[in-house]
Amino acid sequence: MALIVQKYGGTSVANPERIQKVAERVARFHAQGHQIVVVVSAMSGETDRLIRLAKEINPHPDGRELDVLVSTGEQVTIALMAMAIKELGIPARSYTGGQVRILTDEAHTKARILDIQADRLLADIAAGTVIVVAGFQGMTERGDITTLGRGGSDTTGVAIAAALKADECQIYTDVDGVYTTDPRIVPEARRLATITFEEMLEMASLGSKVLQIRSVEFAGKYKVKLRVLSSFSENDNEGTLITFEDSKTMEQPIISGIAFNRDEAKLSLLGVPDRPGIAHAILSPVGEAHVDVDMIIQNTGVDGSTDFSFTVHRNDYQKTLDILTQSIKPLTGAREVQGDCKICKISIVGVGMRSHAGVASLMFRTLADEGINIQMISTSEIKISVVIDEKYMELAVRALHKAFGLDSENSLIER
Amino acid sequence: MALIVQKYGGTSVANPERIQKVAERVARFHAQGHQIVVVVSAMSGETDRLIRLAKEINPHPDGRELDVLVSTGEQVTIALMAMAIKELGIPARSYTGGQVRILTDEAHTKARILDIQADRLLADIAAGTVIVVAGFQGMTERGDITTLGRGGSDTTGVAIAAALKADECQIYTDVDGVYTTDPRIVPEARRLATITFEEMLEMASLGSKVLQIRSVEFAGKYKVKLRVLSSFSENDNEGTLITFEDSKTMEQPIISGIAFNRDEAKLSLLGVPDRPGIAHAILSPVGEAHVDVDMIIQNTGVDGSTDFSFTVHRNDYQKTLDILTQSIKPLTGAREVQGDCKICKISIVGVGMRSHAGVASLMFRTLADEGINIQMISTSEIKISVVIDEKYMELAVRALHKAFGLDSENSLIER
Repeated sequence: MALIVQKYGGTSVANPERIQKVAERVARFHAQGHQIVVVVSAMSGETDRLIRLAKEINPHPDGRELDVLVSTGEQVTIALMAMAIKELGIPARSYTGGQVRILTDEAHTKARILDIQADRLLADIAAGTVIVVAGFQGMTERGDITTLGRGGSDTTGVAIAAALKADECQIYTDVDGVYTTDPRIVPEARRLATITFEEMLEMASLGSKVLQIRSVEFAGKYKVKLRVLSSFSENDNEGTLITFEDSKTMEQPIISGIAFNRDEAKLSLLGVPDRPGIAHAILSPVGEAHVDVDMIIQNTGVDGSTDFSFTVHRNDYQKTLDILTQSIKPLTGAREVQGDCKICKISIVGVGMRSHAGVASLMFRTLADEGINIQMISTSEIKISVVIDEKYMELAVRALHKAFGLDSENSLIER
Repeated sequence: MALIVQKYGGTSVANPERIQKVAERVARFHAQGHQIVVVVSAMSGETDRLIRLAKEINPHPDGRELDVLVSTGEQVTIALMAMAIKELGIPARSYTGGQVRILTDEAHTKARILDIQADRLLADIAAGTVIVVAGFQGMTERGDITTLGRGGSDTTGVAIAAALKADECQIYTDVDGVYTTDPRIVPEARRLATITFEEMLEMASLGSKVLQIRSVEFAGKYKVKLRVLSSFSENDNEGTLITFEDSKTMEQPIISGIAFNRDEAKLSLLGVPDRPGIAHAILSPVGEAHVDVDMIIQNTGVDGSTDFSFTVHRNDYQKTLDILTQSIKPLTGAREVQGDCKICKISIVGVGMRSHAGVASLMFRTLADEGINIQMISTSEIKISVVIDEKYMELAVRALHKAFGLDSENSLIER
């Protein structure tokens, strides 16, 4: 008997019929003696419908009220899901984020989970009840409804699994696992049976949209065993298992996959005085405006001045550009502000990279052979990311997928 | 400066455009220096849509989960309404029933309000914020979401007005006041400028659907000044004012209006042993099944046995019939159970009835002249109700409206 958290995304609960399918899967696990907690998203299309309603009233709706509005999407699903499970003769009970309670900070529309009080859930689970929790939402200390931002239902699933010390957190989605890259771009892409947490973290953060980055961070931090599966598959135990790295027992391939992301924009401050504290002076007002910064590049200064570049989500581009132009440029005495929305970021990811030389040079040479100019480079132990012109994205991904042997039937990615 | 609670029904908030119209009205009152609390229903059609979803999954959905589901309807409206008011530059804040908090009992889908904690609302009001409260819903002591049953948003409005000691509670609806009877049945029906609480109570309970009965009871109990207005009228101060009776200063007409109701069904136990406690033995299991009983008729017994009849809502008909047949009949030794769904109840209502003889006989003679058989009669100080065959409803209402002079331009109903 295991305690399993199952998270179902919007397409898996898109209509009453699909909700009943999910309930049947829950019943199968329940019949095997498992204790089940189900975390659900809004029915697909519902969140967009609600946001459209809000925008008809106000193009820039108030964050607090937007959360009150969109949180109804998941609330509808938990009620329907609990009804569907009960219909199969299994006791079930729905919980909103506030009812659980999932305590968050007050950053409306992109709140972070501070604490989960699991007592009431554990009592229900012990009594044999299937719990159905609304993903994506929480509540502040003073009782205001918050949402975790788009995709936040994954985070809810993992956080609940961590709080309950669940044996496994299963993320059901419309794809059946993690691939070497997006099969829509590279038809030869292949599903990985396992992937390490570190790799998954890099893949998720880089736009491989199977899992939300925060859910992977959470899973790593609390050692939650995470599995990505398709809710449309009949087989209950396939998918990709995300493991803690154990390089002693596992033959690692050089790279596991290629991630890409065209949701970002690049901003540069040129001719910034090269003095201590300058990075903080630039990024701290950006952070205060709740803009998440991804890549940050600063070159060694020449003649006492340097160029400073970073990337943000495209939705935050105009806001960030305004902050740079209106307050940071005069404050730092920078010469010029530049911005570019038409970029994409491409990354190769793999824990095997650590012990193999020449990975970076193969990447750069492959791009050069295709005539693609690299605008920014950023590296970590297990990934190398480059920013290039958006229009070369597909070309770059396909070329790299081939160059690193991911196309091949006999490649090292078979684990 | 007054503290005004304004309640808007589903048709008044049916789409973003109408919500903006309501926000403009709120802004007009706000500009006059009034403090405003807005109570809203779900956008029209939304509650039905949600119930349809539930019934696709389970024809008899669980009450707790149904409340979680349908309460999202009002939650959507409060968010949109608060956004619309803020868009006009007026501070506004939405509250779900649980957030207020409106504490109810645990009778899901037809809960009753036990208490309202007004502290947080009063602090917001004092700070100049317009409060937007979700009607129709509350929360149990343990934090479960409840709903007050259909039409319960009126009750929320009045209960909030009572808890805040508001100067007036305005119920905005799609009709512009209380009429002598339904104008769709009798085109000559006319709007009353005022009506007493007692009359309104009888009118509401008898199916005159302008106001929900419980809201009128609440208003009377807590002496809340209640006004019914049209949300589509440009004039902000028309409608029908519901007053505390003051017969010394007011010339009362004989009757104020004619109410009717075809939502009920009749049930009879024939040949029940006529002994003390028999009424309790019959009605207590019905009450325990959360079925509301309306009219109750028992005649003097003959030969130690009597016939016992009562009416319930049609939705509860089958359930009640089952209770009577399966448990009460064998328990009481009754001879036979009879039921009839095809009935309607017609009532004449008026505080003036008290001091005028002959009202009942005029009513019965009018129905007899039309060849309409009376199945049940029930009277109170200010109303006389009869149950007749459903098919005679329109005929009976029109005949009575005329017989009591309500058609006439010069009738006593002009107050």
